[in-house]
Amino acid sequence: MEDRLEAVVWDGGRDGTLRLVDQRKLPQVWERLACETLDAVVEAIATLTVRGAPAIGVAAAYGVVVGVREHHEARGADAALEHTLAALAASRPTARNLFTALERMKAKAGGLLELPRDELLDALLAEARAFHAEDKELCEAIGAHGWSLVPEKGAVLTHCHAGALATGGIGTALGVMHRAQREGVRFAAYACETRPLLQGARLTAWELGERGIPVTLVCDTMAASVMASGKVGCVIVGADRIAKNGDTANKIGTLGLAVMARHFGIPFYIAAPSSTFDLSLEDGAGIPIEERDGSEVRGVRGTPTAPDQVAVWNPAFDVTPASLIHGIITERGLITEPDAQKIEALLGSS
Amino acid sequence: MEDRLEAVVWDGGRDGTLRLVDQRKLPQVWERLACETLDAVVEAIATLTVRGAPAIGVAAAYGVVVGVREHHEARGADAALEHTLAALAASRPTARNLFTALERMKAKAGGLLELPRDELLDALLAEARAFHAEDKELCEAIGAHGWSLVPEKGAVLTHCHAGALATGGIGTALGVMHRAQREGVRFAAYACETRPLLQGARLTAWELGERGIPVTLVCDTMAASVMASGKVGCVIVGADRIAKNGDTANKIGTLGLAVMARHFGIPFYIAAPSSTFDLSLEDGAGIPIEERDGSEVRGVRGTPTAPDQVAVWNPAFDVTPASLIHGIITERGLITEPDAQKIEALLGSS
Repeated sequence: MEDRLEAVVWDGGRDGTLRLVDQRKLPQVWERLACETLDAVVEAIATLTVRGAPAIGVAAAYGVVVGVREHHEARGADAALEHTLAALAASRPTARNLFTALERMKAKAGGLLELPRDELLDALLAEARAFHAEDKELCEAIGAHGWSLVPEKGAVLTHCHAGALATGGIGTALGVMHRAQREGVRFAAYACETRPLLQGARLTAWELGERGIPVTLVCDTMAASVMASGKVGCVIVGADRIAKNGDTANKIGTLGLAVMARHFGIPFYIAAPSSTFDLSLEDGAGIPIEERDGSEVRGVRGTPTAPDQVAVWNPAFDVTPASLIHGIITERGLITEPDAQKIEALLGSS
Repeated sequence: MEDRLEAVVWDGGRDGTLRLVDQRKLPQVWERLACETLDAVVEAIATLTVRGAPAIGVAAAYGVVVGVREHHEARGADAALEHTLAALAASRPTARNLFTALERMKAKAGGLLELPRDELLDALLAEARAFHAEDKELCEAIGAHGWSLVPEKGAVLTHCHAGALATGGIGTALGVMHRAQREGVRFAAYACETRPLLQGARLTAWELGERGIPVTLVCDTMAASVMASGKVGCVIVGADRIAKNGDTANKIGTLGLAVMARHFGIPFYIAAPSSTFDLSLEDGAGIPIEERDGSEVRGVRGTPTAPDQVAVWNPAFDVTPASLIHGIITERGLITEPDAQKIEALLGSS
């Protein structure tokens, strides 16, 4: 049976097809979109057909195969690769994993550009598949290090969507919950709807429902009341980029939840692979924050909700300072009360 | 020029017309609905054409004139009044100001039912106008006590809608801003959209735009980032009920904003008339919180945003503890760091 939660699939060999679950249409419609060209892959990333930093990374890795395959004949290997990498790099500015994937594919291609086209494509596809398989393993390892934090007979609150649909595997924040479920922990989840793009309502609520984890959907305005009710044992969310000191960029609204969790004495965890760390940044101040079009705030899925011309600020991410983060769950282990020293120690280990 | 923000208008004398801004159609369409019959007034209140507790009260006071005028000939003064009061009381049975208005109109009519019809109607209209004028004065007095809190060259963040459209005057939280504007303070506003019913996006953003106050609309998820940016000088919101100790029930999302404001060192104010205090309640734990239908969370204005059957929690209000409230702005003055003693002292004064 097809796994409806598998966001990124490559069907076939070097002439195969990249298929992405079209996450814009969930939860009302589930379908996979075939991306036959580089432009299609770039558009799928830019328009959030595929979303979630790790899934973007995996899609981009396969996207390198698609782009080099498409442009090899006309441009030659060097220019095809360069064009492909540049196009994919421009698709989403904040996602760290996108750049990790592109750097890795570039490094792989580096010594192979003299190979015949088919051999080059085989090598690139093998590398993309390896990158994908590693992401699956990362998710499993994050789940293994995090599941015991899920409170028996308690509830986990999460934001946005850091699940299977957002990764190459079982997800990060939702992967921790999935593993806890497999380990027999009885718990419930609260999903914040996550305006403006409603990933919590559309994706997290749907994915947890598919997994059979009891989930209650709330508006973002209700998170404080849920926490004040005493029902939330911990908050677990994903991450888009983590600076050297532990400051974490994640979906807009995360910072507010971290502040509330601290106020109500609820542990706040980030679940993310170590590739999410950007050690070139001393702290969160250096993380670029994508600002998206105001139309996303002035309406909901095409329905206007505000005056047509009202000024809007629409940052897609915020930065939660390390001081508000109880722990970061990575595939290498859990870093509690993260700081530069602990992060360096963990990332330096093998 | 017509004041488009005046939610409730009575045109003419005893044979005049009650006109209500149709708030269901805002912000896309502005129009006043003429209510020529008692049934029309009742329907306007029941269907939220007019909303906001003070505005409902004012509309109901004029509604008594409409009803007695309509039914006086056929039923006689006594029965016309009784029928009118019963019909209006059933329109929104939980709205407190509605009953305040009806009791007041009933008391006025009490000794006058033997008067000729026109004289009775003149007296009732005069009473409704007086009730309306007093609500205007309350708003003005709140504005007078609060405007100097608005930061010159800074910004005020607000939630839901506590403006002219919700009252008989300039509003409470937005009235404070309007007064500051009249006093020459240069400032901007941030309006949180206020899911699920989007009063911030639909009404506050529109009303501030009409006033010429620069307003930026943000999703509720963005409030923490706005605060972290250093641009917010203070938060001012309205209130639905305030307990004896200062704990305040207001639109869902207020508690989270108060927690964030405290974290970021931003003063958090409530603006409300003293009639909002419920001294029968020792603290906020006794304030009943209305839970509304889950369909409001599963979609936006008819557009589905979540799995059809997902479980939802939809509390309409939350309770902010007095300890997070920097001040309560009332028509009698500002109570800073509110507690039972200060509140009693203010309400006991005349």
